[in-house]
Amino acid sequence: MRAILFDGQLQFTNSAVLRDPRPGEIRVDVTCAGICETDLQLCRGYMGFRGILGHEFVGVARDGRYAGRRVVGEINCACDVCDYCRTGLKNHCPHRTVIGILNHDGAFAETVIVPEANLYPVPDHVTDDEAVFVEPVAAACRIGEQISLRSGPQVTVLGDGRLGNLCAQVLRHQGCRVRVVGKHEEKLSLLKTLGIATVLLKDLQPERCDTLVVDCTGSPSGLDTALQIVRPGGTVVLKTTVAAHQSLHMAPFVIDEISLIGSRCGPFDKAIELLAQGVVQVKPLIKARFPLEQATEAFEHAVRKDCLKVLFDFR
Amino acid sequence: MRAILFDGQLQFTNSAVLRDPRPGEIRVDVTCAGICETDLQLCRGYMGFRGILGHEFVGVARDGRYAGRRVVGEINCACDVCDYCRTGLKNHCPHRTVIGILNHDGAFAETVIVPEANLYPVPDHVTDDEAVFVEPVAAACRIGEQISLRSGPQVTVLGDGRLGNLCAQVLRHQGCRVRVVGKHEEKLSLLKTLGIATVLLKDLQPERCDTLVVDCTGSPSGLDTALQIVRPGGTVVLKTTVAAHQSLHMAPFVIDEISLIGSRCGPFDKAIELLAQGVVQVKPLIKARFPLEQATEAFEHAVRKDCLKVLFDFR
Repeated sequence: MRAILFDGQLQFTNSAVLRDPRPGEIRVDVTCAGICETDLQLCRGYMGFRGILGHEFVGVARDGRYAGRRVVGEINCACDVCDYCRTGLKNHCPHRTVIGILNHDGAFAETVIVPEANLYPVPDHVTDDEAVFVEPVAAACRIGEQISLRSGPQVTVLGDGRLGNLCAQVLRHQGCRVRVVGKHEEKLSLLKTLGIATVLLKDLQPERCDTLVVDCTGSPSGLDTALQIVRPGGTVVLKTTVAAHQSLHMAPFVIDEISLIGSRCGPFDKAIELLAQGVVQVKPLIKARFPLEQATEAFEHAVRKDCLKVLFDFR
Repeated sequence: MRAILFDGQLQFTNSAVLRDPRPGEIRVDVTCAGICETDLQLCRGYMGFRGILGHEFVGVARDGRYAGRRVVGEINCACDVCDYCRTGLKNHCPHRTVIGILNHDGAFAETVIVPEANLYPVPDHVTDDEAVFVEPVAAACRIGEQISLRSGPQVTVLGDGRLGNLCAQVLRHQGCRVRVVGKHEEKLSLLKTLGIATVLLKDLQPERCDTLVVDCTGSPSGLDTALQIVRPGGTVVLKTTVAAHQSLHMAPFVIDEISLIGSRCGPFDKAIELLAQGVVQVKPLIKARFPLEQATEAFEHAVRKDCLKVLFDFR
């Protein structure tokens, strides 16, 4: 089948082999897939991944109880029997594979294999272009699972990229007073049209006024900035992974009782609900579409500073 | 009056001047005070403190509603009117002074000035030797205010010193399964006699089995060790401040959704209750007593690796 492989180098292939599904697994024929920051990092050697890339996708289930229906799929494939799985921490199952990220071929392919338990049907009025955002919107929803947003806190999202945009929209919907700090006028103006306050990084005042700061910069400097604006007793959520080591002054964490919380994958059902309600606007983020054959062009487009989301279109 | 000053150098003085109390402040005649790790750090230049040291104390109130009674006092002296004070975050009041730590003369003196609102009467059957531990026991109680311990989590306390010992005792009482990791056979054996599991640091297996790790080492290596043993989804509480910068690999925080929580001062009422109930054993921690005049000897004793608590005795 046609697929985009990473074997130390990004490449399109016409002859990828689809393995047989194991018990409980379903074949999903992909109709649309998105390039994520993690894909770009995997191509720089992150996680040592080798195989078919792609973990943001929507497709049509070929077998199982959703056969013939449009579905999206959670990316963590857990063992279901270990201590983590039995205590509600499937996403941290030490035996897990992760679609397109860890020991599991991904969705930049005509067909991807997914555990049936991971699948969620997509409501009819949610288009493929919207459904392909379920995975990153779910990641944005994860924050509200980890910390209480009931007080409607003052939140700064650092980073005006894909994930920063979605986190801002979700947090605003959840009652937070949100501003986004970024480097790119055009990306910030997109948020402004959604009614979200924005600040250019160079204009940011180092005032410690935020109860919550969400770092979506993917840069080591993000955490430094976060610590300049989070108020004592506040929380910094790390949404993006940074491969490098980073030098930190830890004393302020103790003196000011700052919490630093790592945050990864989130609830698909909640994300589908938000997309179905039209609460999160994702279409303005789509900047380009490519066929699988143009893997290199697509990835080159996705790394451009003015880019938000690049999709692979299978139609 | 007699007092121990730090003015770039530790010294005893016979001629310290007690300032007049401001409205709402009370004079407390100190009967017993303890040397804390923070005192040792202040003498190394931490916080740039100048003045009378000492923040762990018990004494007799000279005026106000507790006049003539034995009292202990919370060390953060807040403004009571700012946003932090009005939202229950008095300990983070940006206008606060901190007794013996920040712009407020401390308790290594015959008399210390304390806001009346900070005072708690000491029950008759709690001795001075016990009451002087209220401040660090309260710091240990702070952890249970910040995170839920309801599940009776597996906890490792890193550090067998003063604070590590007290945190272990308090957490054990709060239903946690506790072990203490330390470097000192003698200090660990004290915990063993209290029925708390102990491990020598050199024998610690880097197994990621702890839901909660409490770092009381006061060393940059503490956090590295914590990250080796905390399980995915788990929490690392930082109890001790480390003045230096520290190099950290942040990606595991995100991938494993680790929370890092700074923790400082805690509830005095809860600490008094635990001491009054005999739940926390503090007397075995007392390793030496000195009069104020022997400031240098007392501090030299307190930095010894085999030392736990050194008291100044005023009787």
